[in-house]
Amino acid sequence: MGKPVILITNDDGLNAPGLRKLINIMRPLGKIYVVGSERPMSGTGHAITVREPLRLTPVAKEDNYEEYFCSGTPVDCVKLGSQIVIGRKPDLLVSGINHGSNASVNVVYSGTMAAVIEGCIDGIPSIGYSLLDYSHKANFSACDPYVMKIAQTVLEKGLPKGTCLNVNIPAVNGSEIKGMKVCRQANARWEEEFDIRKDPANKEYYWLTGIFKHLDDGKDTDQWALENNFVSVVPVHYDLTAHQALKEINNWKLNGN
Amino acid sequence: MGKPVILITNDDGLNAPGLRKLINIMRPLGKIYVVGSERPMSGTGHAITVREPLRLTPVAKEDNYEEYFCSGTPVDCVKLGSQIVIGRKPDLLVSGINHGSNASVNVVYSGTMAAVIEGCIDGIPSIGYSLLDYSHKANFSACDPYVMKIAQTVLEKGLPKGTCLNVNIPAVNGSEIKGMKVCRQANARWEEEFDIRKDPANKEYYWLTGIFKHLDDGKDTDQWALENNFVSVVPVHYDLTAHQALKEINNWKLNGN
Repeated sequence: MGKPVILITNDDGLNAPGLRKLINIMRPLGKIYVVGSERPMSGTGHAITVREPLRLTPVAKEDNYEEYFCSGTPVDCVKLGSQIVIGRKPDLLVSGINHGSNASVNVVYSGTMAAVIEGCIDGIPSIGYSLLDYSHKANFSACDPYVMKIAQTVLEKGLPKGTCLNVNIPAVNGSEIKGMKVCRQANARWEEEFDIRKDPANKEYYWLTGIFKHLDDGKDTDQWALENNFVSVVPVHYDLTAHQALKEINNWKLNGN
Repeated sequence: MGKPVILITNDDGLNAPGLRKLINIMRPLGKIYVVGSERPMSGTGHAITVREPLRLTPVAKEDNYEEYFCSGTPVDCVKLGSQIVIGRKPDLLVSGINHGSNASVNVVYSGTMAAVIEGCIDGIPSIGYSLLDYSHKANFSACDPYVMKIAQTVLEKGLPKGTCLNVNIPAVNGSEIKGMKVCRQANARWEEEFDIRKDPANKEYYWLTGIFKHLDDGKDTDQWALENNFVSVVPVHYDLTAHQALKEINNWKLNGN
């Protein structure tokens, strides 16, 4: 059997140190295809490009390694990477390592995780990695063994149908990390505070800022794991049905009978 | 008690007939604030604007009615609408009426539903409406009683915590609609087919196209309801945890003990 084919993407642009780190960790594991966004795409959510055509530009080609940048979003990168660059479904998709948390409600806004969820919809075993440090100079050195171990395990065992993984790593020295914890997404939200400014023509404009509000006191959540120096591993799916609410909404008897 | 405060948004731009229809249906129900995207934003998913400032432009102001356009995404519209335009959480958020289906996996890519999910995260009772007709000239006349009935019910009863609604309406004459059906999101995916073209400089570019693959034979799904001329009502939440997979991933014993 040949080496596994691994597609790598992210949402911080091709030059992001987190992506370079992820490439380095993955290279021994298989034949690598990197398809990254031309420019940073944080906060793009599950956006796809339907009103403009997409471009793909080769950047590097070596033995068992090809790298491209794509004019679109992280989700576009997955679609183009799979269909055009590789020409078949890869054996593994990894996205990241994101600069900043994608734990709890951040998963909803994340371009890194959107790529992963897209892979999952397409039936590709997919993993997103994030380090809880937003800075360009973040220290990714503690990530290696966890990123590697999870990727190897997924290559070996696969993932349950319709499931992908959201892995977050605390921003502490490797020696302080207590291990990995499989957990659920914590309930939280961002409380917006707009920074209101005036342009030279005296017209208002708004910068989005916000405060993270952790609303969950469970010890089985990703947020708890991270605050206690564990690497959090959340299985994620794309069935957004609130199954537990079906009965109550049914009881409304919307058709009046 | 005063009239309920209702925030209306969409992802097809302020001039979309589906938005104008939704405004008309909602006006008798409360004090209306419309905050729509300047331009069509289909497929923007849960994107937020963090790298550019946002602008808000007043369009109309009458008794119990204000309308603005926003330079950002549908999610930005909700944040700005709530925080800046209204200055408090509205009593109801409605988004749409989208031109085209947001049933089954389309909910993941939808800007219309991203606005609704954002409202839900913020604790606002939120409903997304879509008509299964992509055309600008879609006939929205069958929508009225269903859009109205669901909005009135939510205003009266509220929604279960952390739950919003994804309502899709079949593109048939009103007399053919058999009623409403509370259901789960069908499993489906888009199979991409890129339309590969060459520009005048002979460089390739790609248009994203796709074929919808319905992978679910359940009769309790939104896709089934719509194919059988029911209005589908799916309760949606933003907990992406694949709870059913927690046990299996735990059994991997990632920490090796």
